[in-house]
Amino acid sequence: MQTIGILGAGQLGRMMAVAGYPLALNFALYDTSGSPSANIGKIYSDPNNAQTELKQFLQEVDLVTYEFEHLPLDLANRIAKIKPLRPGVRALQVCQNRELEKRLFRELAIPTPAYAIVSSAEQLANAVEQLGTPVVAKSLTEGYDGKGQAVIKHIDHCRQAWQDIGHPQLIVEQFIHFRRELSLVAARGTDGSTCFYPLVENNHQGGILRFTIAPAPSLDAKLQSQAEAYMEALLADMDYVGVMTLELFETEDGLLANEMAPRVHNSGHWTLNGAHTCQFENHLRAILGLPLGDTAPHGVSAMVNLVGRHANVAGVLRLKDTHLHHYGKSERPGRKVGHININAENYTALIEKVKLSLQQVPESSTLQCSIAGIA
Amino acid sequence: MQTIGILGAGQLGRMMAVAGYPLALNFALYDTSGSPSANIGKIYSDPNNAQTELKQFLQEVDLVTYEFEHLPLDLANRIAKIKPLRPGVRALQVCQNRELEKRLFRELAIPTPAYAIVSSAEQLANAVEQLGTPVVAKSLTEGYDGKGQAVIKHIDHCRQAWQDIGHPQLIVEQFIHFRRELSLVAARGTDGSTCFYPLVENNHQGGILRFTIAPAPSLDAKLQSQAEAYMEALLADMDYVGVMTLELFETEDGLLANEMAPRVHNSGHWTLNGAHTCQFENHLRAILGLPLGDTAPHGVSAMVNLVGRHANVAGVLRLKDTHLHHYGKSERPGRKVGHININAENYTALIEKVKLSLQQVPESSTLQCSIAGIA
Repeated sequence: MQTIGILGAGQLGRMMAVAGYPLALNFALYDTSGSPSANIGKIYSDPNNAQTELKQFLQEVDLVTYEFEHLPLDLANRIAKIKPLRPGVRALQVCQNRELEKRLFRELAIPTPAYAIVSSAEQLANAVEQLGTPVVAKSLTEGYDGKGQAVIKHIDHCRQAWQDIGHPQLIVEQFIHFRRELSLVAARGTDGSTCFYPLVENNHQGGILRFTIAPAPSLDAKLQSQAEAYMEALLADMDYVGVMTLELFETEDGLLANEMAPRVHNSGHWTLNGAHTCQFENHLRAILGLPLGDTAPHGVSAMVNLVGRHANVAGVLRLKDTHLHHYGKSERPGRKVGHININAENYTALIEKVKLSLQQVPESSTLQCSIAGIA
Repeated sequence: MQTIGILGAGQLGRMMAVAGYPLALNFALYDTSGSPSANIGKIYSDPNNAQTELKQFLQEVDLVTYEFEHLPLDLANRIAKIKPLRPGVRALQVCQNRELEKRLFRELAIPTPAYAIVSSAEQLANAVEQLGTPVVAKSLTEGYDGKGQAVIKHIDHCRQAWQDIGHPQLIVEQFIHFRRELSLVAARGTDGSTCFYPLVENNHQGGILRFTIAPAPSLDAKLQSQAEAYMEALLADMDYVGVMTLELFETEDGLLANEMAPRVHNSGHWTLNGAHTCQFENHLRAILGLPLGDTAPHGVSAMVNLVGRHANVAGVLRLKDTHLHHYGKSERPGRKVGHININAENYTALIEKVKLSLQQVPESSTLQCSIAGIA
């Protein structure tokens, strides 16, 4: 029996392990956050990142994967010398640095918003002048907390934004008036075979994914093949193994790549109940060198995140075609504590079922409006 | 977060735990076999049945359920005094004794094969004379190994059969020339609400379930409602909580009850991929007092048991609409080491897919014939 080592012990690792038991896999999870929530498999807790238990963890596992991309690169390199690390170090390197990421997109002829890299408040002001307001300024590398962004609406605000973000280098991107946000989840195996889930529509509020509709409604079929071509190029370039997610903007001129994540992704959670093979199983199949599974959807699906507060469990379980995924985490503002998957035969029926499920979700009124806006 | 205690730590407990993680449940499993295979949750191993760890196990859990019905009744009684035991002691009592079981069927006007209880070789011969050959003679109570049965084809064989079975009391049943074997899996909640999966068709070879087709093809709708009425009566009589399975013979004169199992059941494994809510989740919902989930099937399904030998993992994963459930157990003749679930839109397509999957199963030639015989 093989043991998969997962770096990180949150809900992604947990759902990966749940998907892996039917494949007779064992799991060991290595947590450095001090608050592992996965509560499955063998948990190694190393809150001070002292790596005292890392050796034992590595001895125990056959291969290593990760549930988050902000692993220190030197650590990733050291691990990759001892056990197979899938996806590899290069994916981490690219995904940790917005400049490298954008440059790779450009190299592969994947359109992105116009951008500039700046190292001072003056350079920031110059970039804003060139790109035109509004712009989005982001720290070039990102910490664990997802902070370090500002929308600059007027050139006079550059100095303030520079100070607020407080990072030695920023990427400044043209603000895109997108029609909607899409994402593509794909997997690539050790033999280079690939599979793609349908593009999905994502809705964020306050920087947090609130819901996903899968497949994205009224989608031009050309966009699916376009997105798959971009993904195929990225995966091949990085010799990537595992599940990868590409976030895109749909604009009047087509797709623009926003960013990518070298892992299973919140916008792929619908696959747990809405696709023949879920993203977690496909990630495991990919890193184990097993054949990839069918990504076709069953009808249409919605995924509603439970952010900060849990849903009424009995209320959700009473609903037809509705599945609760409760992460067993305590409530805290902004924390993802679970999600609800809803399936239907068509979008009209889906939206009605989503509305019923939202009645079981605390403070869901704004969410209710946005979802109704889609229908 | 609630912790469910499971008595037994085999594949049924394992699949129950896998189904319980999305409901934020913890699991502790208590094994007395000396070879727990569940490999999930916290395993208490007590191979000598010394019950030294039982106290600690009971302290840790919020409620107790079981994955097998051959628990000593005194132990079950002791547990039920300390923590809620669901299903309760009465279900164990009835299901451990074929006479009590048959008597309950009769009391509730559930037809069974004609039978007699005998305590000697002479009484056995008298019973055979009365019932007519062939008969099936079984020990009244059953050990863990499922032994203790004989088909008696001639009255002269009674003495030999009595000696072979070697049990002080036997039940002798008329041998039923059934059309096929069916089973009904149902759940009953703490509030008395019930739900029923469709009747499925089971095929045994050498006393071991080999495959299930769900729903049972070409089934008279009357039989489904008849079986549900029998189940409803049994559940209500025992004030049962949890999933229960009733095995039935379909004959020219309708249904005859064979036996029941107070637990999730091998003939319900297809629900993992073929029904809106699987039997394991519905068992957990039931014992936790949560609303029961939708039992409707997605199209039609087959479940093929992997007996003794594992399938070719990569070969199975390559197949469309086919899901592997590998229990992580070592191979041993007669041991259930996994199963394969196959889904399709109709029975013709299903049988074709089953045949493809059987190419990945060692020594499946007889199975191939039987399944083809159904189509």
